[in-house]
Amino acid sequence: MDTKQLLSHIELELQRQVSRLDTPRTKPFHEMLAYHMGWTGEGAGPEATGKRIRPLLVLLSTASCGADWQSALPAAAAVELVHNFSLAHDDIQDNSPKRRGRDTAWVKWGAPMAINVGDALFVTSNQAIIDLKNNYPAEVVVRAAEVLHNTCLELTRGQFLDMSYEERNDLSVEDYWPMISGKTAALLSACCHIGSLLGGAHEEKQEAYRSFGHYLGLAFQVQDDILGIWGDEKLTGKSVASDLVEGKNSLPVLAGLDRRGKFADRWAQGPIKPEDVEETARLLTSEGGLIAAQDASKQMTDLALRSLREADPQGDAGESLFDLANKLLKREQ
Amino acid sequence: MDTKQLLSHIELELQRQVSRLDTPRTKPFHEMLAYHMGWTGEGAGPEATGKRIRPLLVLLSTASCGADWQSALPAAAAVELVHNFSLAHDDIQDNSPKRRGRDTAWVKWGAPMAINVGDALFVTSNQAIIDLKNNYPAEVVVRAAEVLHNTCLELTRGQFLDMSYEERNDLSVEDYWPMISGKTAALLSACCHIGSLLGGAHEEKQEAYRSFGHYLGLAFQVQDDILGIWGDEKLTGKSVASDLVEGKNSLPVLAGLDRRGKFADRWAQGPIKPEDVEETARLLTSEGGLIAAQDASKQMTDLALRSLREADPQGDAGESLFDLANKLLKREQ
Repeated sequence: MDTKQLLSHIELELQRQVSRLDTPRTKPFHEMLAYHMGWTGEGAGPEATGKRIRPLLVLLSTASCGADWQSALPAAAAVELVHNFSLAHDDIQDNSPKRRGRDTAWVKWGAPMAINVGDALFVTSNQAIIDLKNNYPAEVVVRAAEVLHNTCLELTRGQFLDMSYEERNDLSVEDYWPMISGKTAALLSACCHIGSLLGGAHEEKQEAYRSFGHYLGLAFQVQDDILGIWGDEKLTGKSVASDLVEGKNSLPVLAGLDRRGKFADRWAQGPIKPEDVEETARLLTSEGGLIAAQDASKQMTDLALRSLREADPQGDAGESLFDLANKLLKREQ
Repeated sequence: MDTKQLLSHIELELQRQVSRLDTPRTKPFHEMLAYHMGWTGEGAGPEATGKRIRPLLVLLSTASCGADWQSALPAAAAVELVHNFSLAHDDIQDNSPKRRGRDTAWVKWGAPMAINVGDALFVTSNQAIIDLKNNYPAEVVVRAAEVLHNTCLELTRGQFLDMSYEERNDLSVEDYWPMISGKTAALLSACCHIGSLLGGAHEEKQEAYRSFGHYLGLAFQVQDDILGIWGDEKLTGKSVASDLVEGKNSLPVLAGLDRRGKFADRWAQGPIKPEDVEETARLLTSEGGLIAAQDASKQMTDLALRSLREADPQGDAGESLFDLANKLLKREQ
């Protein structure tokens, strides 16, 4: 299936949704959203928009159930707007000055404005999901909205756990999964769930799609954690030092802490300096942190692919869905 | 109609909606929302919750259309949750340490957590409106959600205008109404609109209810502006100085600026000091700022009551709606 065509339709639908703020008195406000979405300002373009994986998952899920993907475009826009709302607030919460190589919204316009940018993206996401009413029976719209809202609650839960973990030093691997389920897996899971719902799949099939998205999200996040410590800097585009230096509670780190060995001792002594990264990473490898994460990644990948086979996606879209899954699950960047 | 009974049901429904976060790992998060809603922590109780005017308007609108108000409770909760979401973010944006005499959420838990508290309140609001599906046909739920989401976009617009006005010194009265329409009137308007929709009112009647809420909101805000400069400190509970000292772009101030007289000169010279408040207020009175605001307040009040008569609310609930309107429109506090 021609995902390029899907991507151009996704972008148009996103722009249509956000254009609700393109009114005389709120043009500068609309401009802030357009910048954050990667459409305008310095560095605008595909690098700035990100890969739009979430809306792609929605459309491929719908199409692989044998239904028309065009009707599902508002839902595709909705999930991407939720993702971007969470990024806008995340950047403020994490005090991150850069996202995808560009200044974040709060750096450009201050935190108060950036909070409002995130809120507006969230609102347009809500409006987008209700736009489904033009293409589907009201019962289906209500169900899609319900799935999306439940997912957003998971996002806030995950965000809470992530922030509250920053102050803790008693974390273990079992604290990892609830956080990641909320922060990463919930939305990917919702994409596949909503996509198959709009594709007319029966409950059991929807559950298989939902499950695929969930494990895809978990596998993806674990890989991200591995790359954040042992990744190839040239491929990932970010310093491999960053996750250790930032003290991120990633899976390898939590697995390392569970061993209560030399890595745990070093971690307890406070922030890792850039010059200590290589040695600390080596310590973590020797104490099993890398292996533990690789095992988990393999396990989640297997579960994701098993769910996808169970979902049994049809036609070109089905093939594209397997391709996308394989690309995401075997990535090196 | 016994509004006390309505209020206790509103509080129970709000607690039910927010309890979605009362799960093992997110209890401290749930506690933050409960505190912000006025249920727990220092100063908890009726003083801290506020008057719950918005959910009351929903239920009275539904009941005065001759329908069962209990079925509309999730919508009543939804509008109050939207209101509280906007307050949580507003407090961060305005850097306000106190709300209703209590520490704001960001003071207690930091801005990152407080942003997430606002987001979660917004999510539970979305979930609450979808809960209507248990009591109404899906078409009605979709329409109610649509009205609520459109209103939220107005809120973000109003918030943008309010924040962007802070940097401007060329404002006039005509900049006032779009800001206030978004920040105050939109949600009150949505309460009456959604209430009558759930009450089964036909389009024209819904429009009258909507219009009542809109003008009620405008009148209420103008009165708030007047009390913020000339109110009785003992009744309002806040220093009358505050609006002038804070440089708030209220209606009397913008009307005063339009005269381009001594008040405008004084305003242009920078912040009003507490000791200059009395003299500045006198200047504004003599140059017509008070009269202009009083005229606008009277005009909006007349329009609100005319719309309410047109809506022709029935029974006890109809009487309570007139009572509530009169109380809000003739308030001294």
